[in-house]
Amino acid sequence: MTELCQFNQALEKNEANSVALSPLSFIKRAAKVYPLRTAVIYGDQRYTWAQLYERSCRLAAVLQQFDVGRGDSVAVMLPNVPAMCESHFGIPMAGAVINAINVRLDAEAVAFILSHSRSKLLLVDPEYYPVVTAALERMDNERPTVINVSDTTQQGEQMIGELMYETLLQQVSEPAPCFPPLDEWDAIALGYTSGTTGNPKGVVTHHRGAYLNAVSNVLSWELAGPVVYLWTLPMFHCNGWCFPWTLAAVGGISVCLRKVDPELILELIAEHQISHYCGAPIVHSMIAEAALKSDVEFGHKIRGLIAGAAPPAVVLEKVERLGIELTHVYGLTETYGPATVCVKQPEWTDCTLDERVALNGRQGVAYPMQEEVAVLDPNTLEPVPADGKTVGEIMFRGNILMKGYLRNESATAEAFEGGWFHTGDLAVLHADGYLKISDRSKDVIISGGENISSLEVEDLIQRHPEVELAAVVPLADEKWGEVPAAFVQLRAGSALTEQQLIDYCRANMSRFKAPKKIIFEALPTTSTGKIQKFLLRQRLNSAAAVAAVAS
Amino acid sequence: MTELCQFNQALEKNEANSVALSPLSFIKRAAKVYPLRTAVIYGDQRYTWAQLYERSCRLAAVLQQFDVGRGDSVAVMLPNVPAMCESHFGIPMAGAVINAINVRLDAEAVAFILSHSRSKLLLVDPEYYPVVTAALERMDNERPTVINVSDTTQQGEQMIGELMYETLLQQVSEPAPCFPPLDEWDAIALGYTSGTTGNPKGVVTHHRGAYLNAVSNVLSWELAGPVVYLWTLPMFHCNGWCFPWTLAAVGGISVCLRKVDPELILELIAEHQISHYCGAPIVHSMIAEAALKSDVEFGHKIRGLIAGAAPPAVVLEKVERLGIELTHVYGLTETYGPATVCVKQPEWTDCTLDERVALNGRQGVAYPMQEEVAVLDPNTLEPVPADGKTVGEIMFRGNILMKGYLRNESATAEAFEGGWFHTGDLAVLHADGYLKISDRSKDVIISGGENISSLEVEDLIQRHPEVELAAVVPLADEKWGEVPAAFVQLRAGSALTEQQLIDYCRANMSRFKAPKKIIFEALPTTSTGKIQKFLLRQRLNSAAAVAAVAS
Repeated sequence: MTELCQFNQALEKNEANSVALSPLSFIKRAAKVYPLRTAVIYGDQRYTWAQLYERSCRLAAVLQQFDVGRGDSVAVMLPNVPAMCESHFGIPMAGAVINAINVRLDAEAVAFILSHSRSKLLLVDPEYYPVVTAALERMDNERPTVINVSDTTQQGEQMIGELMYETLLQQVSEPAPCFPPLDEWDAIALGYTSGTTGNPKGVVTHHRGAYLNAVSNVLSWELAGPVVYLWTLPMFHCNGWCFPWTLAAVGGISVCLRKVDPELILELIAEHQISHYCGAPIVHSMIAEAALKSDVEFGHKIRGLIAGAAPPAVVLEKVERLGIELTHVYGLTETYGPATVCVKQPEWTDCTLDERVALNGRQGVAYPMQEEVAVLDPNTLEPVPADGKTVGEIMFRGNILMKGYLRNESATAEAFEGGWFHTGDLAVLHADGYLKISDRSKDVIISGGENISSLEVEDLIQRHPEVELAAVVPLADEKWGEVPAAFVQLRAGSALTEQQLIDYCRANMSRFKAPKKIIFEALPTTSTGKIQKFLLRQRLNSAAAVAAVAS
Repeated sequence: MTELCQFNQALEKNEANSVALSPLSFIKRAAKVYPLRTAVIYGDQRYTWAQLYERSCRLAAVLQQFDVGRGDSVAVMLPNVPAMCESHFGIPMAGAVINAINVRLDAEAVAFILSHSRSKLLLVDPEYYPVVTAALERMDNERPTVINVSDTTQQGEQMIGELMYETLLQQVSEPAPCFPPLDEWDAIALGYTSGTTGNPKGVVTHHRGAYLNAVSNVLSWELAGPVVYLWTLPMFHCNGWCFPWTLAAVGGISVCLRKVDPELILELIAEHQISHYCGAPIVHSMIAEAALKSDVEFGHKIRGLIAGAAPPAVVLEKVERLGIELTHVYGLTETYGPATVCVKQPEWTDCTLDERVALNGRQGVAYPMQEEVAVLDPNTLEPVPADGKTVGEIMFRGNILMKGYLRNESATAEAFEGGWFHTGDLAVLHADGYLKISDRSKDVIISGGENISSLEVEDLIQRHPEVELAAVVPLADEKWGEVPAAFVQLRAGSALTEQQLIDYCRANMSRFKAPKKIIFEALPTTSTGKIQKFLLRQRLNSAAAVAAVAS
């Protein structure tokens, strides 16, 4: 037996040959190798990599002053401003976990997240003071300390408390040193996702996975040459798909952007020679629409990653004319953002536009450093045949998967059952090994890149005293991709109108989750009383298709 | 304390979210994503990624038939032929360790390596039958089983034993499945390096480091677009700097090459539109020289990595005219090949050729995924000032460092002393954080990319009965970079000639290690009797410089 292990004898890990993998290594190196190169652009603000690193180290020192350390959570509710970049480095440097909150959530959801995550601090932008103030009022105890991140490009507004981000940063006498985490399995981020149930689940990700996916972005996208990245994708979405860390790995430039303003985007693309950007389909089509109106022309090649629904032919055609090449990716918060990519084969360039739309519209193959993606029968875990017809569930296995859901052992166990991560998304596998989503099993509606749980919306509607039964399904929408639509069976005698029920929803949940359309009717159920949602879904979208053709 | 660990509670690793990092994952994915894309070209032979993967799985199955498994070593003595690519996948797939032997070594060294590594099998190319036969004769017991790798492009020769690589591969009924290793810290390769002492040390590397450096090559070199890689670098050198694995990660093409034949290289560059290649300075200058003679012109951009000595101005100028852009890297077998890179800053493009030669001639900064390189005082381990003057030792820390030396606990401990890997190379640090090698502390002569231990050569010369004292130092050489030169003090009455002593060396060691020049004289020693080699080194090279100017 000794012979079997000759390569493990007196060949242990030591301080010199074993270091925890962490994206913090990327910014440390960027500050050394590209100290004077621009790292962040926001309006007139510019930070070099040396400055961004120093500011991140200062942020870590500030957090330590508030007794934030390993195992703590720090929440941020910020648009894509420089402080959001800094948070992705400074918070983990302090040993803590960044909890980036979706800025579109309502006070109740924000309060739930702040409370469930036990966030010690909250960094917040003035735009979200109203919702944050309301959220804090709902919290009984253990409210986080709020730090105001003022944005000099915006109008001054009132503060929550007295702590100012920039002042605290400047008051630091000694920026914190940047050490790797004790263990690469240590948590780096916490991201809440709305899945099947109303209460969001806290996805815990780790340094190792963040490191690997940051690099996987480079491999997947062949990120080469000077990278100038435009922040059209919210950084609160799966930590901007790990791109804050990817940009440190390649010494690229982050061009920050408060909100998706198509005219501004066109200006920034031209001004900064943007080379890369990411977004939901709606972002790409808004850019394309705006470009058609403005007659802008870019003299350089731009590459976009598109997630969510497949890019429709009209979008693909429009953006191609602008010199934008789109690549389709798919992933979840649980996979740190993109986990599959529709790798383009050289022979596709000879295809017609329609053929390319069909080929590129698939979710594709495993991301370069994601170990494995498979379409499996959810009961037997056997792979489905690659026939383009048999539906199975998309499952992943690899290093770029969450640790699990925070304080939710049963959901974690369920998600990882049988040694695979179950996405809940249904797909078929094509003969070339590319997968294509056919349906979602968990009733999630994706609207403008945001996940909406249909069950959460149904739950709210059914709490209305005049509603007997409700079913919420996605309605295809040219602008948002999908919007929620509700089929509602009213109690006898009710005269509730569509607008009244929509207003009720808007008053009680994040506005974007409220149904855009309500159809009152008796709902079709199975013999066991289960609503036959697939019938409603079919009916709705064939009606929508007819309407679209007619319009 | 419970609160401190909320991100580690019920969030353990499981089969779905934790997989050992291994470059085997790259070929598995390449076979799925690019099954029909060419992976290997050698003469008229072509293998796609699906074929290369299948052949590697067949090789693993063959090895298993010979009872090769985890912890075993399989030696290969092969030029850059397809079987060498396959060995980099098939051997680790069987759980074993690839021991790639330098094909320029003599029988004694080969016998030592085969014996010390306890290699069960040896894959050998006909060209090395004589040396392997002589090596096997020297081995008392536990001789490895030899498998003949015939090369159809070469003349048939006699075999060692009866086992033929291709026949064995074809006879496999069931290719082995490709699993990741049990542990990413498991050994993947064993490479013998000649350092300060005569007996080479066996550098053991692991799957994790090989995976990371394979990817680090992509980041460092901005490997994008279709990659067509020409194998001018021997794959037995630090496993071809991990490029067999890098090419699998990016789905690139390996254009194999038996030997560095400049005319053939020019043909291959043009024929296959080679995009990338690596080599010692001599390789680049041979290509440049041959190109000048042949008036060849390439219509495309070619990128080269150059290691070893800095590229001289004349080489840089010549290759640039061919459309070749060189990047300077530095590393050792212990660092899986390149571990620093001279990252080009945009502002350098405005410099004169001489300035660029000086800037690009430095060893640079840490490789993208190598954690840290530093120039430290070897006694205190304090960093030297970045003044371009103070000499210190180059040291590394990170994940791309060997496990240690096989069965050599003291050398391992010495190499990793104080939590840093000690390279033995001396350098200064420039103000911009780039390091530049100033001298080598361990008396290694690098000739045509090969390390020669001056102590080993001195030892042999001093064993000659007519020699009293010998000192071997590097002599600058336009073709080889350096060659060994010996200062020899003969015993009284000896009439030994330069040619006789050179012949003696050639007969008793690998030919390339024999001194090219011998100077007979009394050697200068210190008061304690130590030879003042620095004096000899200075004298020799100022003489060489004078000769060069005069010629």
